[in-house]
Amino acid sequence: MAADAGVIDLLGMLAYGELLAFDRMAADARLAPDLRRQALLAQMAAAEIGNYRRLADRLTALGVDPQDAMAPFTAALRTYHDNTEPADWPEALTKAYVGDGISDDFFREVARLVPTIALGDADRALVLDVLHHDDYAAFAAREIRACIAVEPGLADRLSMWARRLVGEALSQAQQVAQERATLTALLLDGAAGEAAEGLFRRLTSAHTARMTAVGLNN
Amino acid sequence: MAADAGVIDLLGMLAYGELLAFDRMAADARLAPDLRRQALLAQMAAAEIGNYRRLADRLTALGVDPQDAMAPFTAALRTYHDNTEPADWPEALTKAYVGDGISDDFFREVARLVPTIALGDADRALVLDVLHHDDYAAFAAREIRACIAVEPGLADRLSMWARRLVGEALSQAQQVAQERATLTALLLDGAAGEAAEGLFRRLTSAHTARMTAVGLNN
Repeated sequence: MAADAGVIDLLGMLAYGELLAFDRMAADARLAPDLRRQALLAQMAAAEIGNYRRLADRLTALGVDPQDAMAPFTAALRTYHDNTEPADWPEALTKAYVGDGISDDFFREVARLVPTIALGDADRALVLDVLHHDDYAAFAAREIRACIAVEPGLADRLSMWARRLVGEALSQAQQVAQERATLTALLLDGAAGEAAEGLFRRLTSAHTARMTAVGLNN
Repeated sequence: MAADAGVIDLLGMLAYGELLAFDRMAADARLAPDLRRQALLAQMAAAEIGNYRRLADRLTALGVDPQDAMAPFTAALRTYHDNTEPADWPEALTKAYVGDGISDDFFREVARLVPTIALGDADRALVLDVLHHDDYAAFAAREIRACIAVEPGLADRLSMWARRLVGEALSQAQQVAQERATLTALLLDGAAGEAAEGLFRRLTSAHTARMTAVGLNN
């Protein structure tokens, strides 16, 4: 059975997301104030590339060259990262915490909403499995709180930074949605049952909760 | 039993070497001509940070803060990398192939030469285990040959580049040897039995063989 074009898009987008997340997170590790923290962010980056490998292998097994599957998403994802390059360690942490949080929530919804007829159980499990682990967000949250504790004015700057991250992410997501009709159809088909607004409401409220948890304002 | 200061130095130097190799290799992956190769170098970088974790955990188990153990080596290793930043993909590959080749050979000799009384079996196995795998050098060698095949003049430039890598590595190694008396004593004690020249002869001849294997001149 030929794989659904929307599913190939989904796996390709996730794969390039992991590859680029590795690249940017490895660079952001240089912003760490000490070697222990640098190593921790480096390990998180390394986990992304492990996930990339699994997605690329799955695409290959489906008869698709991972490079071809990723190609439609390179411009949007690169633009997002180019426009949100952290200037220091707190910004790098906030980007990992806020950006990855929203993106994980989004893919979790996708895995839940897309009908089984399009996304088989194995691929659904793979999508869920490559999302970030809780200890990752916990580390970032702890570090952000610690940074704010020693420099209270930082909360305002990081709140603004987080809004910029969300704005850039939405802008690029819109680009992708317009250009990739099959992927958008796959997602909207799934979401249609309960209306797409429900999806956005849940994403927004989870984001707000994450912000509040580290002392940032939406 | 308190760990030998030379062994702590050895593990600390290896650990920082891995952490920095991750950092530089992750950055060098950007020089790759396509996403497949970029991902391959990224995966190699990820392997380094996995090894870092094992060394850092071992240092912690020995009652030593990994940051303290790494501190004496950060300047020398950073200087080496700062002075040998690859300008393009073939230079990045050659750096991985030549630089890691010599460094692996060196640590393999250390693991063989240092007496059991100083370096226990578990630590000796750990040192050997964090060295690079053969498929890593094989990938770099294949890529270098492929680059030279399409651009014959490249062999000369890469030969010069390799000599620079060796020169910088030796210069930094001398710095470390002068500053870290316990580490140097540990290595020279082991090598003394057959004279240190034997060690250097073997390292040099392995390096020459590696150069020849990819069409470069010593």
